[in-house]
Amino acid sequence: MCIIKRIKMKVTKQPFFIEVIRPQLKEVEKKLLADLGTYNKVLTEAATYLFKAGGKHLRPVLTLLIARMCGNQITSDHITLAISIELLHTATLIHDDIIDMSPMRRGLPSVNFKWNDKISVIAGDFLLARSSYYISKIGNTRLNKLFAKAVMDMCDGEILQLLQRYEIETAFEDYLKKTERKTALLMAVGALASSIISRSPYEKAAYDIGLNIGIAFQVIDDILDFSSDNKKLGKPVGNDLLQGNLTAPVLYALDSADGKRLKELIETKFSDKESIGEALEIINKPQNMDKAKNLAQHYANLAYGTLNSIPVTETHAALDDLFKFILVRSY
Amino acid sequence: MCIIKRIKMKVTKQPFFIEVIRPQLKEVEKKLLADLGTYNKVLTEAATYLFKAGGKHLRPVLTLLIARMCGNQITSDHITLAISIELLHTATLIHDDIIDMSPMRRGLPSVNFKWNDKISVIAGDFLLARSSYYISKIGNTRLNKLFAKAVMDMCDGEILQLLQRYEIETAFEDYLKKTERKTALLMAVGALASSIISRSPYEKAAYDIGLNIGIAFQVIDDILDFSSDNKKLGKPVGNDLLQGNLTAPVLYALDSADGKRLKELIETKFSDKESIGEALEIINKPQNMDKAKNLAQHYANLAYGTLNSIPVTETHAALDDLFKFILVRSY
Repeated sequence: MCIIKRIKMKVTKQPFFIEVIRPQLKEVEKKLLADLGTYNKVLTEAATYLFKAGGKHLRPVLTLLIARMCGNQITSDHITLAISIELLHTATLIHDDIIDMSPMRRGLPSVNFKWNDKISVIAGDFLLARSSYYISKIGNTRLNKLFAKAVMDMCDGEILQLLQRYEIETAFEDYLKKTERKTALLMAVGALASSIISRSPYEKAAYDIGLNIGIAFQVIDDILDFSSDNKKLGKPVGNDLLQGNLTAPVLYALDSADGKRLKELIETKFSDKESIGEALEIINKPQNMDKAKNLAQHYANLAYGTLNSIPVTETHAALDDLFKFILVRSY
Repeated sequence: MCIIKRIKMKVTKQPFFIEVIRPQLKEVEKKLLADLGTYNKVLTEAATYLFKAGGKHLRPVLTLLIARMCGNQITSDHITLAISIELLHTATLIHDDIIDMSPMRRGLPSVNFKWNDKISVIAGDFLLARSSYYISKIGNTRLNKLFAKAVMDMCDGEILQLLQRYEIETAFEDYLKKTERKTALLMAVGALASSIISRSPYEKAAYDIGLNIGIAFQVIDDILDFSSDNKKLGKPVGNDLLQGNLTAPVLYALDSADGKRLKELIETKFSDKESIGEALEIINKPQNMDKAKNLAQHYANLAYGTLNSIPVTETHAALDDLFKFILVRSY
């Protein structure tokens, strides 16, 4: 299901931020599934499975809106960039699901559960390479370097997350570092690359907008892991916690009056059902969720601040709309 | 242990093909371990572990020799290319060892056994990105495209191998296709990229030399999986067969008088020790091994033929020496 249809189902009115880039986004969605005829069917099925399952396509959306912000022109290179980013993002999802042993993604069995870890390793590698192929088409090795460096940093973020599982002494600083590297960096680099293609003087602003809205997006994702339901989320609620990933709501709860009990529960690594249930109840308390929402709002405010610092274009309203969507989304 | 030391131990005299590129190869080896200070220690340890364990570095060697063949000049871009290829090759080894559940590599526990599959996925991705970063440094997106396309094709080869496990009806054509995609292509692309950097008119010759010597190399590798010993090989003998990968010696044995019995044994998927022992005995018969050696020689001859079709440089003797090494190697 494509983003356009999906968002139609979720909100009564077509979001403005989609409306202004609708034809270009359609082109991105179409090309994600194109030119795969020469490869083995199992490989292409596994590699394109998550595209067909839908997804918010927020990274291409942001990239295309930044192109507009930087010059109002979306060129074929911007579209190639948007494709490359979604390919790269999907590759990381497939490999992350191996690492997190996630059974679901986008409401369907994850690639590792539908096929297996071996196919997932190969399908992820294939998409990483395809992403690199697309970015090369633009013909500017500065972009290739940016993306390669971003992937290295994302790997660093993944390792940090892996090593800090169940680590109740995780500092907020480490959480933010992981969040930046794992999620926000790709949005930042996508926005920066878009501004480079536009030959815009606002490269730093584009990067900062991507980075800050990326952190806000991930904090909301971490909240939804607790407050959403399986169906909306398309993956099991509480999976982050079960994997020992201690995100913003958990860190706030650890710092609350229930912190001592939560620590004990986390230390069991949730070997029984009761302990995860009790932990979820503690974390879900409004004061923890509100603090996490405020954190997301803080990063969104930084993005708004940067956006408002540059000359207003007609795309500002669409970016504003996108930031709001990121903050209020429920999936 | 570096290639120079390792080859010294194996043969009494320093091979000529190493001698002519010794300073450049040293530089490659040094840079493989450089500039990693900002990344997490576990990540860099897992990612550089196989470099420290040694390896033949045949891909950088071939790349550097082709540079010589194309103009006698090894530039800093050729060295960057050689680093990129070894990074990419090592990434594929780390991910392959997850797929094949290999316990050993280069005489040490494989990354997935020393750490685990999760760390292996991330370390492989990190090296893929680092390879892409290095190739971008050269500043020619044609090279980026070539490498990205090669990785996609290598993934296709991996999937083919995975899907054809224990498939006793595997045709020789399929075996050669897998061999080309899995192994030879990277050597071909490395040689081609080297000739592109040299602005040589012999791009096609460089590619063909890499491709054919790459197939010869892999056929010998497949022979060594049966005829070598664990210590020399640095990994368990017979592992390909145990994983159901039916390589040239197996295909020849299936086509021999013992073929019927071997089929029965393969169909058991080696659920007991006796069946793998009996299968190894059948495959190891001289007539099967000789046929496989002839196949490797055939592809080496094609490489020799191409080499002899282009104007002789002083590097021809070194390439000739490398081809011989590939054919007679025992590890």
